[in-house]
Amino acid sequence: MHRDRFYTLIASCPDRVGIVARVSGFISGYKGWILETSLHAQPPDEGDATGHYFMRIEVRADSLPFMLSELRERFRPIAEEFGMEWKITDSAVKKRVVILVSKQEHCLYDLLARWQSKELDIEIPCVISNHDTFRGFVEWHGIPFHHVAIDSGDKTATYARIRHIFEEADGDTMVLARYMQVLPAELCAAYPGRIINIHHSFLPSFVGARPYHQAWAKGVKLIGATCHYVTAELDQGPIIEQDVIRIDHTDTVADMVRYGKDIEKTVLARGLRYHLEDRVLTCGNKTIVFR
Amino acid sequence: MHRDRFYTLIASCPDRVGIVARVSGFISGYKGWILETSLHAQPPDEGDATGHYFMRIEVRADSLPFMLSELRERFRPIAEEFGMEWKITDSAVKKRVVILVSKQEHCLYDLLARWQSKELDIEIPCVISNHDTFRGFVEWHGIPFHHVAIDSGDKTATYARIRHIFEEADGDTMVLARYMQVLPAELCAAYPGRIINIHHSFLPSFVGARPYHQAWAKGVKLIGATCHYVTAELDQGPIIEQDVIRIDHTDTVADMVRYGKDIEKTVLARGLRYHLEDRVLTCGNKTIVFR
Amino acid sequence: MHRDRFYTLIASCPDRVGIVARVSGFISGYKGWILETSLHAQPPDEGDATGHYFMRIEVRADSLPFMLSELRERFRPIAEEFGMEWKITDSAVKKRVVILVSKQEHCLYDLLARWQSKELDIEIPCVISNHDTFRGFVEWHGIPFHHVAIDSGDKTATYARIRHIFEEADGDTMVLARYMQVLPAELCAAYPGRIINIHHSFLPSFVGARPYHQAWAKGVKLIGATCHYVTAELDQGPIIEQDVIRIDHTDTVADMVRYGKDIEKTVLARGLRYHLEDRVLTCGNKTIVFR
Amino acid sequence: MHRDRFYTLIASCPDRVGIVARVSGFISGYKGWILETSLHAQPPDEGDATGHYFMRIEVRADSLPFMLSELRERFRPIAEEFGMEWKITDSAVKKRVVILVSKQEHCLYDLLARWQSKELDIEIPCVISNHDTFRGFVEWHGIPFHHVAIDSGDKTATYARIRHIFEEADGDTMVLARYMQVLPAELCAAYPGRIINIHHSFLPSFVGARPYHQAWAKGVKLIGATCHYVTAELDQGPIIEQDVIRIDHTDTVADMVRYGKDIEKTVLARGLRYHLEDRVLTCGNKTIVFR
Repeated sequence: MHRDRFYTLIASCPDRVGIVARVSGFISGYKGWILETSLHAQPPDEGDATGHYFMRIEVRADSLPFMLSELRERFRPIAEEFGMEWKITDSAVKKRVVILVSKQEHCLYDLLARWQSKELDIEIPCVISNHDTFRGFVEWHGIPFHHVAIDSGDKTATYARIRHIFEEADGDTMVLARYMQVLPAELCAAYPGRIINIHHSFLPSFVGARPYHQAWAKGVKLIGATCHYVTAELDQGPIIEQDVIRIDHTDTVADMVRYGKDIEKTVLARGLRYHLEDRVLTCGNKTIVFR
Repeated sequence: MHRDRFYTLIASCPDRVGIVARVSGFISGYKGWILETSLHAQPPDEGDATGHYFMRIEVRADSLPFMLSELRERFRPIAEEFGMEWKITDSAVKKRVVILVSKQEHCLYDLLARWQSKELDIEIPCVISNHDTFRGFVEWHGIPFHHVAIDSGDKTATYARIRHIFEEADGDTMVLARYMQVLPAELCAAYPGRIINIHHSFLPSFVGARPYHQAWAKGVKLIGATCHYVTAELDQGPIIEQDVIRIDHTDTVADMVRYGKDIEKTVLARGLRYHLEDRVLTCGNKTIVFR
Repeated sequence: MHRDRFYTLIASCPDRVGIVARVSGFISGYKGWILETSLHAQPPDEGDATGHYFMRIEVRADSLPFMLSELRERFRPIAEEFGMEWKITDSAVKKRVVILVSKQEHCLYDLLARWQSKELDIEIPCVISNHDTFRGFVEWHGIPFHHVAIDSGDKTATYARIRHIFEEADGDTMVLARYMQVLPAELCAAYPGRIINIHHSFLPSFVGARPYHQAWAKGVKLIGATCHYVTAELDQGPIIEQDVIRIDHTDTVADMVRYGKDIEKTVLARGLRYHLEDRVLTCGNKTIVFR
Repeated sequence: MHRDRFYTLIASCPDRVGIVARVSGFISGYKGWILETSLHAQPPDEGDATGHYFMRIEVRADSLPFMLSELRERFRPIAEEFGMEWKITDSAVKKRVVILVSKQEHCLYDLLARWQSKELDIEIPCVISNHDTFRGFVEWHGIPFHHVAIDSGDKTATYARIRHIFEEADGDTMVLARYMQVLPAELCAAYPGRIINIHHSFLPSFVGARPYHQAWAKGVKLIGATCHYVTAELDQGPIIEQDVIRIDHTDTVADMVRYGKDIEKTVLARGLRYHLEDRVLTCGNKTIVFR
């Protein structure tokens, strides 16, 4: 967590000799001051003969002799040389996060508390819900609220409207803060790595509906929550963060729901922060999280 | 967590043969339906030659052939026979919790979210603060807000006013939700076992001010929070609940503060719930928590 | 953990008014000194119209005016009245635990360390293995070692031999301390609630072979272990204890195996202790653990 | 955890532009294949005006065109240019770890299990103890055992003998595996950053003797253990690793001791592994642990 403006470079490419030297040499050649460097070499395996390299570097903006656009231009040849997927973001540009909720309050209150105190230093252009429950609470915070009811017959119009609102809001990230609805495959495909869900189980256990009932029936001794990117396959997207809490035989499903809420909101907030700080890189269906 | 109305008996007394038999015999003699029973025998030690017995029993209200007042009357002789400290509470009577805050939002948002969803099924007659920061937020929830500024010269009037507000509100419990002020000894003494604080360290480490700075300087690998009853001695009252979270060398004090907030609000909410459900009995400066 | 000899009564029965009163009245009628009482009412649900009651009571042996056999005789009518499944055990009679291992050392070393220091106050009449690897180590501790090789063609003789050794050893409990073999259904059925396994995943995730490889492929952020009773259905028996440890993207399968070993041995030791102290009661495919 | 031979460079120096570029450029200039890179910039604070930089880099030995001695020679000018404290170690050279124990078995069994399975790929030239308890166990493993009794009058000779044994054994690291004795200041000073202790509390809570008794008296809800470097000031050296476990009011001091043992051995093993893999750098009285 830094106070000064900085640029964040994240990149991945096939592994080979000299990647770090080339990138860090580029930065130091302009006297760029590196605040944080995270590097990871994924060794070769069956599906990846060369192995893969992942990096995230924060550079103080005022240490470089040019602006962000020029930084990008000058870095481009290096990226092409190594076959990188890459981007450079600017800490001064706040991410725009659209929150989707249903009727459960805990993640929404939690995210707005973090936003209000600037712990999460983001814009929330709007909140979308299939119920009108939290309109007053959201609007009191000065945030627009959209009630998009779900037509159980044809959901096409519903999700077209949500997509339209997200586009109008110029959203970077969509957060399903216990939205309790399954997004259609087209919507998932439209925003890969940009829709984040919190699932109320320790995945891959208890996929789908009513995971606390499933956990109770199975008699597990810990319950958990999973923050993951949304893909077309339900509850199967890349996992960003997980945690668990201990329960015992005295806990009913209602108790589990209550304990679970504390894990859900914490895991969602941690995962979202990693994502917003560009700390999450995907590698197939897995994530590299440069905590 | 039960839906039906129930009475909760909590009691402690010197240990001897026959306590459980006598109390459970009393209840079953009236066909009372026991929902939950927790018992604990504290063995004799240096300061307690006989050992002590602690119990908590929930009985369904509609299973008994009389009202609460008569239950208390009929139980009194048993309590006297065994030398019990005891009380019987009624799940239909909501506890009245007065919250004191300063300028940090996380515990306040968290408690109001739990109250709003009835996860915490309590009355919040008012919120008191030494700053006006959260007036709008609290009042939007329909809860009166009292700004009681602190006169750094003479705090007597300040705390007299707080005590007056608490009394007028008919408060059962006072919660210091990161209030950041040291209560005077008289106030602590006036409400033993009724004032709950959340301290932002894993006590007994890092008593007093700026515990995260202390933790950073010491280089600990986990940080924590402690929910405890307030006594005249700073941060020394009986501990109700604690938890920790892992940190590492990359975390600054600001990061610790951020991680700590998640632990603080969770630990406070758990400790407060145990207290409100009459699950906490004290034994000297320690607690029995019948989770 | 008590020093004095005590009897442990565990019992379960359909729930109704007066169970605790009757049982505790019985004990106090003979001036029995209760050291520890644990009670649990499982509410009615779809499969159990009345609900079920579970209890575990420790009574100091020297506080009763008769021997164990007479205690059992005198308690029998109460058990019959309430339709109890029950037993009474004697802390002075050490449980006899037969350990089965393969080629992994961690659970075996761990159990023998606990046995050697009397932390686990048990008899280990023998260790059985499908490899000869640990013969020297086990025999050095003065414990007989049986190498029972597995004939990949017909395993009937193998398991008949194991069963014979267990019977000859007068074993109470069989512990699969990373035995890595699937027991035949007949053997499981012969000792219900008496065979304990440690599975190297957080069940129900990653049933079967190579769970760390499964966990790696899935990209989970925590890995775990599960101690459970063995039933005919692989990795599906009642769960006694579980725990997890955090991993991240830098951890290879080999790292997971290494971290996992620490969780496995700890979870196995905790679950085994609960079992040996008669703290585990089963309720369908779930457990009540009176920790 | 890598199979192939590699060299590990660890270094720290005042922070400035170009450190990573220079070092990684040096390695890639010889086509060195980097397996793992960890970097950390400690920002300036009151006691350190420039900030400090820490690094750890693993390079595959067979990717470099020269031997270790030449690698060191060629790297030396860079180290001098940046004012580095540095060293380069070779994964093919096993560290020599001397273990000191008293009468508790858990850490000793645990370390020997890890050594026996090569999870800890080290040499154990000998075990030293102030009691003869574990002679047979240690010698059975083929490891020399030295009983060095402690003369309660004058301990000078005792520690001179221990130091002599350590020197004769050509020890790299001394591990106090619940040795239960306070080392004299001279011995601590002789091996800075080379003596590792496991303390049975979550430091800085409960320094000194009988920490579980202290924890019981205080009524904490979690107990812990701390692995740290030994310095002349008791239990105050740089912390390498810590962990905790939950307890409750039913746990006696004896129960805490038992739970604590599981935390102690795990925390010691983790901390020792970090140390042996050259993942621990010190920064004043704190550690950077490149996990």
